[in-house]
Amino acid sequence: MIKFAADFSRPTRMLRRALGPAQVSTDETARHAASLDNLRVSFLPAAVIFPKDDAAIATVLRLANEHRVPVTPRGAGSSTTGSACPVRGGWVLDLSRWNKIKIDALAGIAQVEAGAVTAEIDAAAAKHGLFYPPDPSSLHYCTIGGNLALNAGGLRGAKYGVTRDYVMALEGFLPTGEKVRWGAPLRKFASGYNLRDLWIGGGGTLGVITGATLRLVPRPAARHTLLAAFANEAKALGAVLAIMRARLVPSICEFLDRPTVICTERKWGRAVFPQMPGASLLLLEVDGSVAEVAAQRSALIKLLRSAGAQALRDTADPAEAEKLWQVRRTCSQAMFQMGDAKLNEDVVVPPREYVRLLKCTRDLARATGLATPTYGHAMDGNFHVHMMYRRARPRERRRAEKGVAALMKKVIALGGAITGEHGIGLAKSPFLRLQHSPAEIGAMLAVKKALDPRGILHPGQIFTPVSVWRFPQVKVRLPWDKD
Amino acid sequence: MIKFAADFSRPTRMLRRALGPAQVSTDETARHAASLDNLRVSFLPAAVIFPKDDAAIATVLRLANEHRVPVTPRGAGSSTTGSACPVRGGWVLDLSRWNKIKIDALAGIAQVEAGAVTAEIDAAAAKHGLFYPPDPSSLHYCTIGGNLALNAGGLRGAKYGVTRDYVMALEGFLPTGEKVRWGAPLRKFASGYNLRDLWIGGGGTLGVITGATLRLVPRPAARHTLLAAFANEAKALGAVLAIMRARLVPSICEFLDRPTVICTERKWGRAVFPQMPGASLLLLEVDGSVAEVAAQRSALIKLLRSAGAQALRDTADPAEAEKLWQVRRTCSQAMFQMGDAKLNEDVVVPPREYVRLLKCTRDLARATGLATPTYGHAMDGNFHVHMMYRRARPRERRRAEKGVAALMKKVIALGGAITGEHGIGLAKSPFLRLQHSPAEIGAMLAVKKALDPRGILHPGQIFTPVSVWRFPQVKVRLPWDKD
Repeated sequence: MIKFAADFSRPTRMLRRALGPAQVSTDETARHAASLDNLRVSFLPAAVIFPKDDAAIATVLRLANEHRVPVTPRGAGSSTTGSACPVRGGWVLDLSRWNKIKIDALAGIAQVEAGAVTAEIDAAAAKHGLFYPPDPSSLHYCTIGGNLALNAGGLRGAKYGVTRDYVMALEGFLPTGEKVRWGAPLRKFASGYNLRDLWIGGGGTLGVITGATLRLVPRPAARHTLLAAFANEAKALGAVLAIMRARLVPSICEFLDRPTVICTERKWGRAVFPQMPGASLLLLEVDGSVAEVAAQRSALIKLLRSAGAQALRDTADPAEAEKLWQVRRTCSQAMFQMGDAKLNEDVVVPPREYVRLLKCTRDLARATGLATPTYGHAMDGNFHVHMMYRRARPRERRRAEKGVAALMKKVIALGGAITGEHGIGLAKSPFLRLQHSPAEIGAMLAVKKALDPRGILHPGQIFTPVSVWRFPQVKVRLPWDKD
Repeated sequence: MIKFAADFSRPTRMLRRALGPAQVSTDETARHAASLDNLRVSFLPAAVIFPKDDAAIATVLRLANEHRVPVTPRGAGSSTTGSACPVRGGWVLDLSRWNKIKIDALAGIAQVEAGAVTAEIDAAAAKHGLFYPPDPSSLHYCTIGGNLALNAGGLRGAKYGVTRDYVMALEGFLPTGEKVRWGAPLRKFASGYNLRDLWIGGGGTLGVITGATLRLVPRPAARHTLLAAFANEAKALGAVLAIMRARLVPSICEFLDRPTVICTERKWGRAVFPQMPGASLLLLEVDGSVAEVAAQRSALIKLLRSAGAQALRDTADPAEAEKLWQVRRTCSQAMFQMGDAKLNEDVVVPPREYVRLLKCTRDLARATGLATPTYGHAMDGNFHVHMMYRRARPRERRRAEKGVAALMKKVIALGGAITGEHGIGLAKSPFLRLQHSPAEIGAMLAVKKALDPRGILHPGQIFTPVSVWRFPQVKVRLPWDKD
C-alpha cells in the first residue's frame, strides 16, 4: 500500500459539501476497492466519487483544477496494467453505475454509458439481430469506458478489428471540466479535428469518457469452430501464414504453444488430443452466412491438413464448440502450475516474424530458467507471452523482470509493438521509449498539456516509467476471480 | 487572385540557397498551379517546393518556423473545399512526386508515399488478390496524402467505411520539423497516444504526411450491380431503410433524386428507364464470394420490389454494369444545365431523417428559386446537395449562399453533420461553429497550438471563417476536367 505525501483533505471536504456524502465516499472499504485494478498494486485515493449526473462531474473537475487534485476515472477495474490505479492518490471517479444501453435498431447503433458491461452491450444488440464484435477476454465484467480508454482488443480482431473500429462518437468532459462530444452518431463525419480517436486509447488521461455511440453490424447467421493440432509451433504458425496467403478470414484464430497446452493437459490429467499429447494448437472460428461458413470451413480443413495438422476436430454445435474452447479457456489459469505469479505481455509482431518471436520465448526460458508459455491472436500477430515465477523468490521475480525487458527489445527489433491491446498503463511505462522516439513522446506530452494544463487527469500513467513489480502485490479477491 | 501583404522573399531566397532551384520553384506557372485546388479560388504562394527527401522537408519546416512562413502540403489539389489552397501565401510543399507503392502480400498491407494516386494503390493490391476499398469519386487522380488529410470517403462506405478504417501507420513531420511515425504496420497497436487518427482528417494542419501503411482486405471474388427506379424519393429512401432493417449490406447504395435524374435524361435525350422517365433511382452493388453475392442479389431484388421499385435492371457482367453506372457517372456534370455553377454540400443525416432532408432540399429550391439536385451514399446518410446558380448573376449566387446556410442549420437540427467526406477546408469554415461547441473548438485549437506553436502549417484553414464564394472563381483547366 503506497500512501502519498500530498494531502487532499481540504478539497475533499469541499467536494463532499458540494455533492453530499452519497456521491463522495471517504469510507475505507470504498477507497481500498478503488485503489487497485487487476494488476493488484494499490494506491489509496482520498475519496471515491459516484457522480449522479453531468453537473456532478463538472463540479469534480472544477474543484480538482482549482486545488490540483488528481482525478482517476474508473469502470470495473479489470485492467491488467494498472491503467485504473490512482497512482498519485486524489479522487477516483467511479462510473460503473453509469450503465445504460440503448439500441437504435434502424440505424444499427448502440448508445451506451461508460459503465455498461461489454457483454451486455452485445446482448442488447443481439435482440435486434445486431452484433457488437469486440470481445476482450474480460467481456463479462469489464466496462466499455475502460475498453474505450485502452482501445481493447479481443479474440475476434482477426476479422472484426478492435474497439476503435466501432466507435462513432464519444461523450464526456475535458480535463478542464467542459462537456464535449467528439464525432457523431453518423456513419460518416469529417468535421473538425478527430479528438474522438485521440481519447480512444488515451488511457483516460485526456478526457473523462461518460458515454459512446457504437456502430453495430449484422449478427452472423452461422458459426463453425475448429481445433487443429500440430507437432510443433513452427508448423502451427506456418498454417496461420497459409491461411493469410489463401486470403481466408476466420473470425478467430487462436494459437497455443506447446508449454501452454502441456500445463493445461497436466491440470486436466488428460491430453486434448489423446493421440497427440503436448501438441501446439490452433483454435479457429469462422462466421457469416450459412453458405459462407460452409465454404470457409471446407477451405480451412483442406488447408490445415496440407499445412501439417495431425489431428483436427470441428463442429457447428454450440455445446460441442464449447468443449473445443475448453483448452483456451483454461490455459491462462493452468499456467500457475509453473509459478504462482506471471508477467503477461501482449506483444505484436508482423507475420514474417511469428516463428522468430516464438524462438525468442524459448531462448528467454533458457536464459531465465522460467517457463514462458505463449498463446495469442495469431491473425493479428498479437501474442501473450507469459513469464512464470514464484512470488516468494525475489530472484525469480528479478529474472522475470529482466526477461520481459529483453522480450520488449526483441519485439521492437522485429518491427513489433510492446502492446497490442492492454495499453501502457503503469506496467509497460518502462518500455514506452523503446516504441516511440523523443519527438513522438514530446508531441504526445504537448497534447496532454494542451488539454489538461494542470495535469489533474489520471497523472502518473503511461509517461512516467514505474517498475510496478517492485511494489507488493495485494492479496485481494476481485469480482472476476475464480477458485 | 489574392496577394498577401506579407513578404516571404528573404526566407524564400534562403530556402532556395539551401535546397537549390530544382527543389524550390518561384516560377510563375508553378506558383499559379499551386495557388488553387478544385474549388478554383486562387491564393498565390511565394514558392513551390518539390522536396527530394526527408532532409529537404526538415529544412523547409525549420526555416518556416524561424521566419514564420506558412507551409501548405499539397498532392493533386483535387479538394473541392479549398483544403489545398495556400490561403496565407508562403510555401507550397508539393508531394505529388512522392508516389511509391509497395505491397506486402503476406501481411496484406500497402506501404505508400503521400503522392501515390488512390486508384493505383488499389491496382497494385489487386495483383496480389488484395483490395484497397476507399473510392472517392476522384480516385483516378487524387493522392492518398489528400485522402488521409481529409479522411476521404467514397461510394463503398456502406460496406467498407472510409480512409481512416484502412490506416495502420502514418509517417511524416511534426510542424516543428521532427520526423515521426504514428501507429505501426501491425494489425494491433495500443502504445502511446493515437496521433495517427488526429492527423487523419486534420486537413494537413497538424503534420506533414509523407507516407502511410494501409491495411488491405481480400479482393471480393464476385460483384453484382442493380439499378432500381421508384416513383418518388420517399419510396426510394424507404427502400434504403428496408435494406437496413433486413440487415443487408450492399457495398454500394447510391440514391439519385428526381431532379438529378431528370437533368441527366435531358442531357442524354432519353430516359434511363423508357417506361418511367424522371424516376428516383437507387444504384446498388453487392460483392463477396459467389455464393454470398447470389444470396444478397435475390434478397435485394425481392426487397426492392416489395418496397415499390417499378423498374429494375441487374447484371454481373462488367460491361453491362458500366451501362447501369452511366447515370451516376454523368449526373454531376449534367447538373450544369440548371446553372453554370454549383455549391456542392456533402451533408450527413441519420436514417430516420432521410425523407426530411429531401423535403428540405425541395423547400430550399422553392425559397431560393434555384435547382437543388441531390444524390448520395444512402446507407451512410451522406447526401450531396447541390445548389445550382448562374455565375453571371450575383443575386443567384447570394441566394445559393443563403440556401447553403439554411441547409446547414437544418442538417444540424436533424442531428446530422455539415460534412461527411469533403472536410471543412475553407468552404465549410463558416459552419464549423454550428457543428462544434466553443469548448470543442477550444480543445481543437489548443491541440493545434501544442503541435504547431508558430502556426506555420497550413494556416487559415478550418477555423477561420471565410466566405469563399465572395472570391472570384478562376477559369482554369485542371487535369481532371472533361470537355
